[in-house]
Amino acid sequence: MFTVLKGVFTNGIHCGIKKKKRDLSFIYIPNVYATAGVFTKNKMVAASVVHTKKCIKSNNLKAVIINSGNANAATGRQGELDVKETSMLAADYLGVNRSEIGVASTGIIGKTLNMGALRLGLDNLLSIFKEKPDVLNPDKKLNDDILDSIRNGKSTADAILTTDLVEKTTTRTVMIGKKSITVTGMTKGSGMIAPNMATTLLFLVTDAKIPKNILQLYLNKAINRSFNMLSVDTDTSTNDMGLLFSTGEHKIDNESKEARTLFQELLTDVCIDLAKKIAMDGEGATKMIEVQVKNAQSVLDAKKIALNVVNSPLVKTAVFGEDPNWGRIVAAACKDPSVKINPNKMDVSIDGLTVYSKGTPVTLSDDERESMFKTKEVIIELVLGIGTSSSISWGCDLTHGYIDINTEYS
Amino acid sequence: MFTVLKGVFTNGIHCGIKKKKRDLSFIYIPNVYATAGVFTKNKMVAASVVHTKKCIKSNNLKAVIINSGNANAATGRQGELDVKETSMLAADYLGVNRSEIGVASTGIIGKTLNMGALRLGLDNLLSIFKEKPDVLNPDKKLNDDILDSIRNGKSTADAILTTDLVEKTTTRTVMIGKKSITVTGMTKGSGMIAPNMATTLLFLVTDAKIPKNILQLYLNKAINRSFNMLSVDTDTSTNDMGLLFSTGEHKIDNESKEARTLFQELLTDVCIDLAKKIAMDGEGATKMIEVQVKNAQSVLDAKKIALNVVNSPLVKTAVFGEDPNWGRIVAAACKDPSVKINPNKMDVSIDGLTVYSKGTPVTLSDDERESMFKTKEVIIELVLGIGTSSSISWGCDLTHGYIDINTEYS
Repeated sequence: MFTVLKGVFTNGIHCGIKKKKRDLSFIYIPNVYATAGVFTKNKMVAASVVHTKKCIKSNNLKAVIINSGNANAATGRQGELDVKETSMLAADYLGVNRSEIGVASTGIIGKTLNMGALRLGLDNLLSIFKEKPDVLNPDKKLNDDILDSIRNGKSTADAILTTDLVEKTTTRTVMIGKKSITVTGMTKGSGMIAPNMATTLLFLVTDAKIPKNILQLYLNKAINRSFNMLSVDTDTSTNDMGLLFSTGEHKIDNESKEARTLFQELLTDVCIDLAKKIAMDGEGATKMIEVQVKNAQSVLDAKKIALNVVNSPLVKTAVFGEDPNWGRIVAAACKDPSVKINPNKMDVSIDGLTVYSKGTPVTLSDDERESMFKTKEVIIELVLGIGTSSSISWGCDLTHGYIDINTEYS
Repeated sequence: MFTVLKGVFTNGIHCGIKKKKRDLSFIYIPNVYATAGVFTKNKMVAASVVHTKKCIKSNNLKAVIINSGNANAATGRQGELDVKETSMLAADYLGVNRSEIGVASTGIIGKTLNMGALRLGLDNLLSIFKEKPDVLNPDKKLNDDILDSIRNGKSTADAILTTDLVEKTTTRTVMIGKKSITVTGMTKGSGMIAPNMATTLLFLVTDAKIPKNILQLYLNKAINRSFNMLSVDTDTSTNDMGLLFSTGEHKIDNESKEARTLFQELLTDVCIDLAKKIAMDGEGATKMIEVQVKNAQSVLDAKKIALNVVNSPLVKTAVFGEDPNWGRIVAAACKDPSVKINPNKMDVSIDGLTVYSKGTPVTLSDDERESMFKTKEVIIELVLGIGTSSSISWGCDLTHGYIDINTEYS
């Protein structure tokens, strides 16, 4: 669940960019304390990413407007104008500066946005804040209809989806000092998922009061261990964006090492949980694949190997077919000549069953071969035996469903 | 066609490694003048590759024994012993040194070879050379049955295949000086195809007399422009091997720049033709994809971009579905942050139809959108507009056939 923390306003509706489903939403935090962001490294960068990146450099975002169904990428000057107009309209409804409004888009690349639909949608979503500004007052009693239209995390989590089959949200709470601190997040993504800074769209909110520069460091670290180790199909999106908002409600001791460690763990846990939800819902996926690389010579090597295995189409199809063809795992693990790996020191196991040990295949019974890849979450472990570094990646199997979804997308 | 040049002996049979199809073959050039080789960079390297690489370092190979149906990779000490025995047996039949016998294997990884079948097969293929050594005498008249069993390029081209649907052979001839010079080759490969030095198995023979050190340079250059720009599924094989034999029949002027250029072009042409045949026969492929990158800032950038586009699962599925979703091409081209590329200077066209020009999508008619990706050989051209370097890559679409083939391989 995405928890609508105190001081947070959000909702999602259908405005007409998609045929039927929800496609427009906002997150609005009028008294935001700090915001941090990570963005795609794809050089074909969407106008929304350029805008939001620029805003976050000098300002804290008070709101983000999110549309799905159209990425507004590779759309030239028109695309830039459309982002500008979106942020101006939203700024007007909310009575804030245009540079405090982030914009995020996801969907097809190369098509101009339906601004007619978007304009009406923004009016539908945001005019209440201009007309009845006292809805922001925490002491005011509001009826259910109004609450539904301004504090509705479920609709937003739905409105940011594209080919996703399920909403992806997580909330975790821990005690830091004497405060109960929450991180809550939502993400989307199913195809065009490959790590680079942030993958897909991701929105996180915490009630911990954390200054902007520190908030950004927390976010970077969490993303590197979660979203940057996630790959459905090796294709990095033009629109990747991950935002983390601090509402500033609860003070924590930002100088204490213990508090810092606790918050980092909390945030990383939420990000890993959300990344795994994307892997599980990868386009056409029937199984999640987790690749654990241990005892590598460096973290960089461990990451490369973990991603090469989780990205291998031959490993992915073997997992889908439950075909005990483990040789493909060792081939994929060793394929990059730039990594340190020695097949004669390596052990490979699948869901706890060792199949290859230090240069030699393990003799398996028919039952053991039969059992391979039968789990819903396949854990592949590679113990390299040449160091102390490790990494984990997440992905999914490659199935007929992926082909079906991606042959008729536009 | 693979042309069995003067002084070359070859044949392929079924020995029992596969259930029914041909699986064992040889190429034997008793008076070979020089040999060159390129090998996989996968660190899980098959015993056959280790052996053949070592042989070629100090010797010219007089023969290569090739089995399909089993890669004999990740098979530990037993795998090494099996390669040793294969080369010893062949050396005995042919009356040459063991270190003059190359071994090449292709097929499933992680399974021990059926040496019983292989031993009988070698006897079947090679005993004639021990029993009737005068079959090697070029002046001796031989009956068709004997010729069929020792100069049968078609059977060899068939016996090296795995999931391939068709044999892949090419022969080209040009005049160099006053000599008509031929390069002839055969290759195999359909899955686990990604460039690294040589991809898959490749055997080339020329009648030009070229010393070993120069022969190797020619081969490296040709491979870099052909097989190293080929990718069906990004997975590099553990068994890749490409060998080039010079029979030494025709002297050419190895010092003349013109002769060198002519031979390099001839060899590169043959390699490109063979690489394209692999792309065309990629597992499950219905279309070949050629990606031409022009006006890049460096050849390395051009290569990376060409490979990123041809490897993109989203581009590959759009081509399969004939879905005019060209935005995926620009996203894939720009996804690697290490390459120089500027979307605002780039033009993209598909089979001659410009879809994106200098930052802006081109307005297309319905007919034009309908026509996209309808050809059997899809040509994607990216003109980057920031330099003078170029590169071409080859691959294929991603289809239900690829999934079917790879879910039940072992």
